[in-house]
Amino acid sequence: MYFTDNHSLAMEASTATVPDDGAAVMVSEAIAASNDALFTANNVWMMLAIALVFIMHLGFAGVEAGFTQAKNTVNILFKNTLTPVIGLITYFVIGFSLMYPEAEPGFWFAFDGFGVSPRENGNLFDYAGGGYTRWTDFLFQAMFAATAATIVSGAVAERIKISSYLIFTVLFVGLVYPIIGSWKWGLGFLDSLGFVDFAGSTLVHSVGGWGALAGLIIIGPRIGKYVNGKVVDKPGSSVPLATIGVFLLWLGWFGFNGGSVLSGDPVATSFVLVNTTLGACGGAIGGLLMGQAVFRRLDFGMVLNGILAGLVGITAGADVFTPVEAILIGTIAGLLVVLSAITLDKLKLDDVVGAVSVHLTCGIWGTLAVGIFGNAADGSALPFLPQLWGVLICGATAFTAAMLIFYILKVTIGIRVSAKHEEEGLDSHEHGIRGYTIVYDK
Amino acid sequence: MYFTDNHSLAMEASTATVPDDGAAVMVSEAIAASNDALFTANNVWMMLAIALVFIMHLGFAGVEAGFTQAKNTVNILFKNTLTPVIGLITYFVIGFSLMYPEAEPGFWFAFDGFGVSPRENGNLFDYAGGGYTRWTDFLFQAMFAATAATIVSGAVAERIKISSYLIFTVLFVGLVYPIIGSWKWGLGFLDSLGFVDFAGSTLVHSVGGWGALAGLIIIGPRIGKYVNGKVVDKPGSSVPLATIGVFLLWLGWFGFNGGSVLSGDPVATSFVLVNTTLGACGGAIGGLLMGQAVFRRLDFGMVLNGILAGLVGITAGADVFTPVEAILIGTIAGLLVVLSAITLDKLKLDDVVGAVSVHLTCGIWGTLAVGIFGNAADGSALPFLPQLWGVLICGATAFTAAMLIFYILKVTIGIRVSAKHEEEGLDSHEHGIRGYTIVYDK
Amino acid sequence: MYFTDNHSLAMEASTATVPDDGAAVMVSEAIAASNDALFTANNVWMMLAIALVFIMHLGFAGVEAGFTQAKNTVNILFKNTLTPVIGLITYFVIGFSLMYPEAEPGFWFAFDGFGVSPRENGNLFDYAGGGYTRWTDFLFQAMFAATAATIVSGAVAERIKISSYLIFTVLFVGLVYPIIGSWKWGLGFLDSLGFVDFAGSTLVHSVGGWGALAGLIIIGPRIGKYVNGKVVDKPGSSVPLATIGVFLLWLGWFGFNGGSVLSGDPVATSFVLVNTTLGACGGAIGGLLMGQAVFRRLDFGMVLNGILAGLVGITAGADVFTPVEAILIGTIAGLLVVLSAITLDKLKLDDVVGAVSVHLTCGIWGTLAVGIFGNAADGSALPFLPQLWGVLICGATAFTAAMLIFYILKVTIGIRVSAKHEEEGLDSHEHGIRGYTIVYDK
Repeated sequence: MYFTDNHSLAMEASTATVPDDGAAVMVSEAIAASNDALFTANNVWMMLAIALVFIMHLGFAGVEAGFTQAKNTVNILFKNTLTPVIGLITYFVIGFSLMYPEAEPGFWFAFDGFGVSPRENGNLFDYAGGGYTRWTDFLFQAMFAATAATIVSGAVAERIKISSYLIFTVLFVGLVYPIIGSWKWGLGFLDSLGFVDFAGSTLVHSVGGWGALAGLIIIGPRIGKYVNGKVVDKPGSSVPLATIGVFLLWLGWFGFNGGSVLSGDPVATSFVLVNTTLGACGGAIGGLLMGQAVFRRLDFGMVLNGILAGLVGITAGADVFTPVEAILIGTIAGLLVVLSAITLDKLKLDDVVGAVSVHLTCGIWGTLAVGIFGNAADGSALPFLPQLWGVLICGATAFTAAMLIFYILKVTIGIRVSAKHEEEGLDSHEHGIRGYTIVYDK
Repeated sequence: MYFTDNHSLAMEASTATVPDDGAAVMVSEAIAASNDALFTANNVWMMLAIALVFIMHLGFAGVEAGFTQAKNTVNILFKNTLTPVIGLITYFVIGFSLMYPEAEPGFWFAFDGFGVSPRENGNLFDYAGGGYTRWTDFLFQAMFAATAATIVSGAVAERIKISSYLIFTVLFVGLVYPIIGSWKWGLGFLDSLGFVDFAGSTLVHSVGGWGALAGLIIIGPRIGKYVNGKVVDKPGSSVPLATIGVFLLWLGWFGFNGGSVLSGDPVATSFVLVNTTLGACGGAIGGLLMGQAVFRRLDFGMVLNGILAGLVGITAGADVFTPVEAILIGTIAGLLVVLSAITLDKLKLDDVVGAVSVHLTCGIWGTLAVGIFGNAADGSALPFLPQLWGVLICGATAFTAAMLIFYILKVTIGIRVSAKHEEEGLDSHEHGIRGYTIVYDK
Repeated sequence: MYFTDNHSLAMEASTATVPDDGAAVMVSEAIAASNDALFTANNVWMMLAIALVFIMHLGFAGVEAGFTQAKNTVNILFKNTLTPVIGLITYFVIGFSLMYPEAEPGFWFAFDGFGVSPRENGNLFDYAGGGYTRWTDFLFQAMFAATAATIVSGAVAERIKISSYLIFTVLFVGLVYPIIGSWKWGLGFLDSLGFVDFAGSTLVHSVGGWGALAGLIIIGPRIGKYVNGKVVDKPGSSVPLATIGVFLLWLGWFGFNGGSVLSGDPVATSFVLVNTTLGACGGAIGGLLMGQAVFRRLDFGMVLNGILAGLVGITAGADVFTPVEAILIGTIAGLLVVLSAITLDKLKLDDVVGAVSVHLTCGIWGTLAVGIFGNAADGSALPFLPQLWGVLICGATAFTAAMLIFYILKVTIGIRVSAKHEEEGLDSHEHGIRGYTIVYDK
């Protein structure tokens, strides 16, 4: 028997003609027991995916703190720690209901949690199909939501006002992300259009990337970044920290993409893991080659961003590409991330960690690649146009919303710290401590 | 069918009336096969929990090395690396048998492992109920045991003598922790009393916290910490390292609490993960707000300790709170951890990383919160008094035992390094290397 | 029922005499459903193992960057990031087919991936036995392959030319490792000989260790390492980073050894985890004691390398030792790693991170220990001679091949950077950035 569809088991049990004797009763029990076991195994996989996506937040913290200057280390870690906190609570209060209006009717999921018997309130999500619980669903989706905001923090680092960033995060994760997400994953109009986005090259990464781009436009470059037409290098505090971050993001992507199968289906999940890994490898190669071509050195930053680029690129179609295509798509993403970074610098858009190049540029590339390389389950090629529409509609919405929020923040409470604070570092002024205190008394 | 109880399957199979024909034999096989599958899935979840609790030890190492001075970095890492080593071996030799006297009769589990066929010696633990193996049980519990000692190391860091710390750890993990644990988890008198402690707010965290408090009292503050009634700041070596530590502890807590369900039961485990996460989020908010109120800055240390506080607070009742209660309990824990830290400083109890405030104060809070908010499976409110008794009895025992051990160590081999070593740093004197050597030749 | 063999279920289903009625059909369905559930649970465990072995690459990066000088930090991270990338792609293109010639006939696995329906191309591997998918198999084995090359990078760090290292890696992972591996795990002649190597003390660790030793011999020590018969200390950049690395390697070893059961069999996997953990603990104790005896200090580096030594030592027989033996074997490995490091220094073999001592010395020890302590499933002692043969044959092959590759590289493109680059650091010359930039403007 080929394990094609774990949704068929319960149905077989309920529709087969059952001979009327004791054995039949026990057979029903046996099938129910099997379903329990499958349900448990699937849910374990999804909980592992939750843990893996959670650790991506440490990955983002590592990349962003590693690639920003030591005088702002505490500030960026502060933002990267509070972002999942805000993201999770916001998604609990409002985002989950907004994004899945059919599965979660009513506006306030949180209030739904007030029952006397809380466990049962989080009853079963797709139990008949051997799926996972509603609690698992909530937590997996909430971890996703929080990543969309984190993408922004790296781009606008080292000069954004914390209060403005936090307000932006609440609005972006609480409203913008789930509303756009509902158009596809909540079975809205983009889903009807035939738009395909397996694990969120568009819905998560380019939505976050558009938010980052809007931030860059409104806030402007760091002081002294572009001087007399030259790009001034501002070295990050710790390459090891950035490396830890990239490895943890790669690890976390096993849950991000592997969990997006939404069950532990062995073939589907392991296939997605293979593509995800090969996409990352391709991205590293692409970043290495283009970094060498452009900068004439073994540019490690471009290898690291190439890996992330490959991962973002593979995300929209990790289930519909062949492994060889995964390497190709990842490699192209690795080439693109370098070109995109150079282009942004030419436009004086000062993206501190390369977030726009990784998440927006490669998010768009990965989404379109589905319409170029991807095949549906029946072997037919997936159409290109719905992919383009998805990119354009989600992009226009996310960008417009982010521009609006940042603009309103700018003209009200302001979004940029004072020049003095920016030059002396945010850590000593806003947090009263330094990121590193490596001094020996003797 | 609602997946309420994974313990019922095997029983149904054995008690149903079985028609006497070939099909019935096969039905038994089918049910046995289902049980094998469920057993495997449950055991996979528990092994994942083992891995997650293990990584908490790296989390503790990160927090403690990040928050202590650079001159003592190797020393604290040395302690945090040897603590799980000692904890695991001690628990293997004696702790496991002491803590679960009924399941593991005899005093020396280790000797039990000398069989010719070792795998079978570690036979099945609760197989009929779809549970997990005895080896899994041992390793999960051993990982827990080691955390109780680790809590102490951060509090008394930067001045405790290594030999004394190691002896303390052997005695505390080998005897004190498992004996107290046996009163509840080994089905002893606290269990009979109705005391509830799901994953160890009291049995692990406040037991460790009481040990830390005893250590603080006996060893005294670091030289120069309290001068003329002022608290002198001694900045830790690396905020990124502390941040990595907190994220890894949060991650590990998914196994700490999620594994305490002791099966992969989908609803129970995923519900616990949701509460654990929301408790951590609440703690971050609480720490942030109280840090802002008291210190008038965005105190990142209090956000990090707030997260840990929320996690400790939610641990005793992660299975009996509603998610909204989880946020509330976590938030209160986050407020408490700041107040507790200030109070300790007023008492000149120099807790280097805030271990007592996180693990003791919030361990007590979380345990009492079960008696305030928690509901039993039947919907009835859990009583407050057994919680209070549990806190008092475990606290009195752990504190007395720790005081005794530290006092005996003090009057025999001594527990404090020389003032010269303390001021010049423990690394160069005891370990002969430095934690960081970031020097460039040119 | 005792869960001895998860391979028997499907067979029972197909051979039992089936009464000819509707119930029998349903029983078949029930057993198929059970198999689906078991298959899912097993595959989840193997995917968790993949994630854990993947994170070992970050572990290696941490250990190697932590133990090398700050002026070469980016260089070693660059190598450790590209090593898994090259390893994974190479194994995809050629290694997998070479290593498992029967399971994967034909030379180019990659080409096999070009189908129209890619998921099905990665069909089921041992489905009847409740196993895991071919994709899972590939990815697990590929993660293993990449570790063998990583071992070399730490030994020859701080002076090897990157181009030479990368070419070596392609050849070593693409050809040497899978060919040697095929002799045992591909069911070749070493398997027929009765050679036992559960998870690769020889096939992975000592193969990598022999490669490292060959590199040390050909490349020579770093400038200024051995001066007038004295060993000059060259402190690594960050002990915390090395500690993170060791903990992550320990964590990853749960997947390395636990995944080598090749199913989620509860007893077998959990037993292997217990032995793995206790082996690591023994190694820490051994390293601590021998470090104290030889260097007269609490040598933290020897504790860390002791843990890795214990893990390598336990790997060949993690399934056939008793837990007490695991502690003993780990402890001996911990003693050996110190003696080996001293011996290498006496021979002026400059192994920067102790890779040869950890992976080669303890890999040999662990493999031989199987022939000393190990018992087969039937209780009979495992013979010593096949273990010795395995060590000698794999060692001679790996060492000769590595010597040849390194020698050809030396006389063609060269394997060593210029003295100027070595002294000033590889980072500024080859990569244009520094590993750490921890400077405060004020």
